[in-house]
Amino acid sequence: MITLYDLVFQDDRRPSPFCWRAKFALKHKGLAWRDEPVGFTEKEKIAFAQSQTLPVIHDGAHVVKDSWAIVRHLDKAHHEQPLFKSEMALSYAHFVAGWVDTTVHPALFPLLIGDLYDRVRPADKSYFQESRAKRLGTTDFAAFQAKAREKGPAAFRAVLEPARRVLKEQPFLCGEHPAYPDYALVGAFLWARVASPFALLESDDPVHAWRERMLDLFDGMGRKAKAA
Amino acid sequence: MITLYDLVFQDDRRPSPFCWRAKFALKHKGLAWRDEPVGFTEKEKIAFAQSQTLPVIHDGAHVVKDSWAIVRHLDKAHHEQPLFKSEMALSYAHFVAGWVDTTVHPALFPLLIGDLYDRVRPADKSYFQESRAKRLGTTDFAAFQAKAREKGPAAFRAVLEPARRVLKEQPFLCGEHPAYPDYALVGAFLWARVASPFALLESDDPVHAWRERMLDLFDGMGRKAKAA
Repeated sequence: MITLYDLVFQDDRRPSPFCWRAKFALKHKGLAWRDEPVGFTEKEKIAFAQSQTLPVIHDGAHVVKDSWAIVRHLDKAHHEQPLFKSEMALSYAHFVAGWVDTTVHPALFPLLIGDLYDRVRPADKSYFQESRAKRLGTTDFAAFQAKAREKGPAAFRAVLEPARRVLKEQPFLCGEHPAYPDYALVGAFLWARVASPFALLESDDPVHAWRERMLDLFDGMGRKAKAA
Repeated sequence: MITLYDLVFQDDRRPSPFCWRAKFALKHKGLAWRDEPVGFTEKEKIAFAQSQTLPVIHDGAHVVKDSWAIVRHLDKAHHEQPLFKSEMALSYAHFVAGWVDTTVHPALFPLLIGDLYDRVRPADKSYFQESRAKRLGTTDFAAFQAKAREKGPAAFRAVLEPARRVLKEQPFLCGEHPAYPDYALVGAFLWARVASPFALLESDDPVHAWRERMLDLFDGMGRKAKAA
């Protein structure tokens, strides 16, 4: 049995976009897992993996950290229902994961930071505040978020344009069926959904319709997750 | 025989990144073509295609405008050496083309605009000045470029991060062999190379090594093109 160590916020909320990638990948492959929630100040739970970040998985003799390494491992260790059937599939997945990390997340983070802070477990608040203040240059996350929201979600929506162009033509980023590029991007939207009630997309946006399809996948895994 | 209508600058320079996509796609498929240069003020040459932009191709009974439509057409009309062997390949190509259009080109354009203007055909200068001034809000392209270059190419290099992550692991965006995502991105670099001597990449950047490989492709088609 695989154990997945998943970042936990208060009321058992699970916002981590990187952990969502691992959960969608596990579902894609039809693999069951044991869930192990880990708060920001419970890093001793993943000390065995020499990791400071989540997700981590423990899969038989294998301990794997980092979402990209985890999904590569899953395909190597479990041949059924491959995530990466071809070099092209692997390349596309790697490209989109990098695009989400370096373009989508930075455009989203300022819109969510105050709501994320509100939903961190009480025991983890000071850790979260200190670590994120280093990144943002302020501890007033509510004000930082308010300022980002004043400008509205236009810049975030603009960043999604490469995905939108594809989703105008087909139901998923990968064609008729979802695959890892879809999972990498929906992780960002689940991060937002679990942490914040802020509306990111217009209802006539092809990305909106895609997100609905992604929330329905795997018996509604994303839709059933405790949202803000 | 296919005719490709290609945007021409002075001294027979060919900077259009969209026309480069078509040329790489034609080479990929082993298709020969007749070259028809078109200046900005010679749009009557492509009036038959109801197009205001290049590239345009005339392929037997088919007239096709827009680089994405052209490469889709090429694969449908000529089955040898497909550009898109799978739904995944087509999806990746569409995504990367959209990413180059909406992220890479806008980061590059301010760094090149003065040099582009210098190399437009004399007959096309006023057309270029007027149309680009609308976009930039100024006719002083040299000053606009100088200001962009003062900040340096750091922002442009940052935008390339999704490509860089893939190219750290493999020689081309598509794996061991190049395909349309590589052609879409190299079009941006040929736009720069043909129009401007400005150095965009550091020599130890994996994107730099990839660009060298791309310039060598197809008997050095890109490298042989008249550069600035």
